[in-house]
Amino acid sequence: MKLDSLQEQLGHRFRDPRLLLQALTHRSHSTPHNERVEFLGDGVLNCIVAAELYTRFPGLKEGELSRLRASLVREERLHEIAAGLALGDYLRLGEGELKSGGFRRPSILADGLEALIGAVFLDGGFESARDVVLRLYRPLIESAEPSAVEKDPKTQLQEWLQSRRYALPQYSVVATRGAAHEQRFEVECLVRELDLRTVGTGTSRRLAEQEAARAAYDKLQQ
Amino acid sequence: MKLDSLQEQLGHRFRDPRLLLQALTHRSHSTPHNERVEFLGDGVLNCIVAAELYTRFPGLKEGELSRLRASLVREERLHEIAAGLALGDYLRLGEGELKSGGFRRPSILADGLEALIGAVFLDGGFESARDVVLRLYRPLIESAEPSAVEKDPKTQLQEWLQSRRYALPQYSVVATRGAAHEQRFEVECLVRELDLRTVGTGTSRRLAEQEAARAAYDKLQQ
Repeated sequence: MKLDSLQEQLGHRFRDPRLLLQALTHRSHSTPHNERVEFLGDGVLNCIVAAELYTRFPGLKEGELSRLRASLVREERLHEIAAGLALGDYLRLGEGELKSGGFRRPSILADGLEALIGAVFLDGGFESARDVVLRLYRPLIESAEPSAVEKDPKTQLQEWLQSRRYALPQYSVVATRGAAHEQRFEVECLVRELDLRTVGTGTSRRLAEQEAARAAYDKLQQ
Repeated sequence: MKLDSLQEQLGHRFRDPRLLLQALTHRSHSTPHNERVEFLGDGVLNCIVAAELYTRFPGLKEGELSRLRASLVREERLHEIAAGLALGDYLRLGEGELKSGGFRRPSILADGLEALIGAVFLDGGFESARDVVLRLYRPLIESAEPSAVEKDPKTQLQEWLQSRRYALPQYSVVATRGAAHEQRFEVECLVRELDLRTVGTGTSRRLAEQEAARAAYDKLQQ
């Protein structure tokens, strides 16, 4: 059966294959789909990565651990790992998503991986989920360079301004475009005292703010 | 020993009492303090509550589970539980914090509780941490009314505006006051098309935005 090789890569054989199937079922395909179990998987993943970093990096402070974890569990990383498993070949998508190439979309792959982790937790408990997560994450965690974890642009900008006693930047959404499920946000970052305005765009307000902050920080470095 | 009754309330007796002591030690007191183990406890708590809600509320969607969890793990809830344990009597604080009543401060109590959960996880593993969390949370989870989980004010405001095809509100920090560890943020919420401006304040930018959104939403309901 085709799912054998996926289970081999995960290092977990499902006692209840329905859980595996559910984790691989996108909401565009049928019910039960993977959204609830993805919620669970997200919590399980965060916990396991937190525990691993806590043990592995006794010298890191809370904020550093937190940033390192964020860098490991963010969508791009999940997407890379999912792509390495060829998860797109196993996901069950509805017609529309299939035609529009949903099996390649980073968010669908990342969500599918979180759902898989949640399903392993339900199937085999916390220890099974930990085995799977550490197996998938070993290369990333072993090559993690805590000192190199870049602060996010908003933090960098804020720290730069605070250290010079300037007020915090102001962010505001200046435009949104597109329909609900594919909105683009355009955010302005304003540093009033320096008369500096930059704009960033992204698929969420948060991402657009980060882009605007990055542009502002880059200008200040010049 | 005084810590006996705390361990009894938690339903966990520490094999390694140093972990318990560390969880109770605020950074103002001495090292090793509880910040790293609080980071761990936060992840453990989120995971356990997610798993419990997933099982207990099979009819809830991902977004509803997520909001319900957020309502259970937020600082106010943690603070209530910590107060119920009289955690302030056990925390070890530095002189300055003691004098300024730090043992009553919600954030210090909430952080201490998360640290305790992290310490139980390190001492006895995931199952021990689950037992403790569910014991502490049972009354809250059993009385949880998923339908009554209020959306946060920013979400409410956004949905209200979107359903009427208005642009998203703009938030900007108009002032910050106080030293780094006790900053107050003042945020303006602007709904340009409706010429509506409201202001919220809080100990973080996020909280101040929520307050500003709440004020705007309330005005729109009038």
